[in-house]
Amino acid sequence: MKLVTGIIQPHRLDDVKSALEAAGVRGMTVSEASGYGRQKGHTEVYRGAEYTVDLVPKVRIEVLVSDEDVTAVTDAIVGAAQTGKIGDGKVWVVSVDDVARVRTGEHGDAAL
Amino acid sequence: MKLVTGIIQPHRLDDVKSALEAAGVRGMTVSEASGYGRQKGHTEVYRGAEYTVDLVPKVRIEVLVSDEDVTAVTDAIVGAAQTGKIGDGKVWVVSVDDVARVRTGEHGDAAL
Amino acid sequence: MKLVTGIIQPHRLDDVKSALEAAGVRGMTVSEASGYGRQKGHTEVYRGAEYTVDLVPKVRIEVLVSDEDVTAVTDAIVGAAQTGKIGDGKVWVVSVDDVARVRTGEHGDAAL
Ligand SMILES: Nc1ncnc2c1ncn2[C@@H]1O[C@H](COP(=O)(O)OP(=O)(O)OP(=O)(O)O)[C@@H](O)[C@H]1O
Ligand SMILES: Nc1ncnc2c1ncn2[C@@H]1O[C@H](COP(=O)(O)OP(=O)(O)OP(=O)(O)O)[C@@H](O)[C@H]1O
Ligand SMILES: Nc1ncnc2c1ncn2[C@@H]1O[C@H](COP(=O)(O)OP(=O)(O)OP(=O)(O)O)[C@@H](O)[C@H]1O
Ligand SMILES: [Mg+2]
Ligand SMILES: [Mg+2]
Ligand SMILES: [Mg+2]
Repeated sequence: MKLVTGIIQPHRLDDVKSALEAAGVRGMTVSEASGYGRQKGHTEVYRGAEYTVDLVPKVRIEVLVSDEDVTAVTDAIVGAAQTGKIGDGKVWVVSVDDVARVRTGEHGDAAL
Repeated sequence: MKLVTGIIQPHRLDDVKSALEAAGVRGMTVSEASGYGRQKGHTEVYRGAEYTVDLVPKVRIEVLVSDEDVTAVTDAIVGAAQTGKIGDGKVWVVSVDDVARVRTGEHGDAAL
Repeated sequence: MKLVTGIIQPHRLDDVKSALEAAGVRGMTVSEASGYGRQKGHTEVYRGAEYTVDLVPKVRIEVLVSDEDVTAVTDAIVGAAQTGKIGDGKVWVVSVDDVARVRTGEHGDAAL
């Protein structure tokens, strides 16, 4: 099992959720974050305001997936979050030893 | 070393903290998240309000543990968070290469 | 590739960011968290207020790095966050299978 984490622009969240649903994802976790990209000296625009040095509001999406779904899920996030502009986001994949569903106590792929 | 992450219902946080303390856990990190479970078409209830499609407030708990404690800590979270209702939560385990305690600069199990 | 996560005192964030920049880091993600350290019965001070049992405001920093940079980045966070006081923070390292840059679709070290 894998955990796919994406840091994306907030205004892409709805499209990313739709893309994930279309890819068969039935659960995800979303939270707020602030991003510091590599645009040293450049600027990023967020809701009409320019952010120069530092903090840009971002959204974090996390999706637990089976090994065979990791490419499809990563591609879904990248594809739906992409605008071609600086600061579009980052996606990374980490291996997961175990997953449990709290309601049933199930473990492993059955708990995804 | 392992990182155990749980996404639970906010009203279970106090019980989960107590269960973790009883399991010998001395440190944890808590943060806010929004959950999108697999209850497509179903509803979850949070503070009397029904959430249909989408965002349900959740709490994230993270606990760094030694390898031998991972089952006890996972079970403590699942046991204390469980109500038997849809949306009870998810727990997952990831392997950690290294941990450092900032105050002392210690690394490894001594830093847990 | 590795993900280095630090939970630090909020008032150390600026120094940690500077130390990371000096270590060559060009991107990072920052978010809010609450910490429960092992100071059972002790207290931590945050903005003049004493927190006894429980919740202390913390900042989470996450940095994706190449394998060869992981020690420098970990040391930069520990060094810049350290005050020598209880509750200074925790840093941990997790292995990352893949990273993608959303704007370009690049994967691997090129996406860092
Ligand atoms: N090395 C990193 N470690 C952790 N988070 C990162 C890293 N780089 C970027 N991020 C996060 O991802 C968000 C989006 O990054 P961003 O799209 O700017 O990446 P980038 O590599 O700078 O690409 P671009 O050249 O398109 O700007 C950042 O705001 C930050 O939250
Ligand atoms: N695949 C997933 N990836 C990431 N987070 C998830 C995933 N599935 C669920 N979560 C998170 O865990 C929370 C609780 O999930 P939930 O308990 O609804 O899991 P479930 O598998 O749908 O089980 P149930 O059938 O009991 O509802 C969700 O609100 C979401 O934050
Ligand atoms: N085992 C743990 N798992 C997850 N997060 C932890 C753990 N221990 C500490 N943390 C997080 O790191 C923050 C800082 O921890 P803290 O510096 O108090 O660590 P400590 O091991 O108790 O060291 P000290 O003896 O210096 O207090 C905590 O507030 C919490 O957010
Ligand atoms: Mg950037
Ligand atoms: Mg559900
Ligand atoms: Mg402590």
